[in-house]
Amino acid sequence: MSCLFCGIIKGDVSSSIVFEDDVCIAFLDHRPLFPGHCLLVPRSHYETLSDLPKALVSPVFENVQLLARAVEIALAAEGSFVAINNRVSQSVPHLHVHVVPRKRKDGLKGFFWPRNKYESEADIVKVQQLIRSEVARMQTVW
Amino acid sequence: MSCLFCGIIKGDVSSSIVFEDDVCIAFLDHRPLFPGHCLLVPRSHYETLSDLPKALVSPVFENVQLLARAVEIALAAEGSFVAINNRVSQSVPHLHVHVVPRKRKDGLKGFFWPRNKYESEADIVKVQQLIRSEVARMQTVW
Repeated sequence: MSCLFCGIIKGDVSSSIVFEDDVCIAFLDHRPLFPGHCLLVPRSHYETLSDLPKALVSPVFENVQLLARAVEIALAAEGSFVAINNRVSQSVPHLHVHVVPRKRKDGLKGFFWPRNKYESEADIVKVQQLIRSEVARMQTVW
Repeated sequence: MSCLFCGIIKGDVSSSIVFEDDVCIAFLDHRPLFPGHCLLVPRSHYETLSDLPKALVSPVFENVQLLARAVEIALAAEGSFVAINNRVSQSVPHLHVHVVPRKRKDGLKGFFWPRNKYESEADIVKVQQLIRSEVARMQTVW
């Protein structure tokens, strides 16, 4: 039941902290895509993005805004990549936002591939309707 | 100077809309990583995440929370991937949040690789200090 990131937040596990405030802490990922790859986490334990209470959404993502820009400047990068894995590919079940400096020609261009096409227009409409229906259902309970 | 996503927002360009409110619109990416891959964009034109005004951070990311969960349920997925490319690998210079349903064994496991190690402890400390310094500088002007 012990959470690695809760351990870092408590100070029981060492990390290279780059930012902290009342709501969040950010530290270097020890297996970075590129040097300067940070993980920003809320101090409270929530598993996924959707589990984060609304009251924390702005505090967390304003910090992501700041950290993304700071990482770009600090690493002399040309851009940044911000990403969250929810459950699948999520190594630690404590919400963490990856903030990664990017440079053109950094070798990650193929990153978003392979991308596909929908087989037919009907297929697009079907997927659209599935999502619209679920959004409508959730809006009544969210 | 014409922005594709502003065109979609205005209704000049057709898209498969899955969600909209006063602040945001979300539609299917036409070249999806997987079916159900959506792009959520603020109606107002901002280039990157850091350009988004603080007042819009919560409205936008509460919608991302909802859409991530909706896409998981609608596509019977086991998780989701939420990502933002700022400048590098950003195909359209209008902030857009990728929301992608994920399944285990969907072939995207190698997605976050190759990941590296810092060459030395000194290298870690150097990068940490670069980011901490920039965060401190930005906090005085942000």
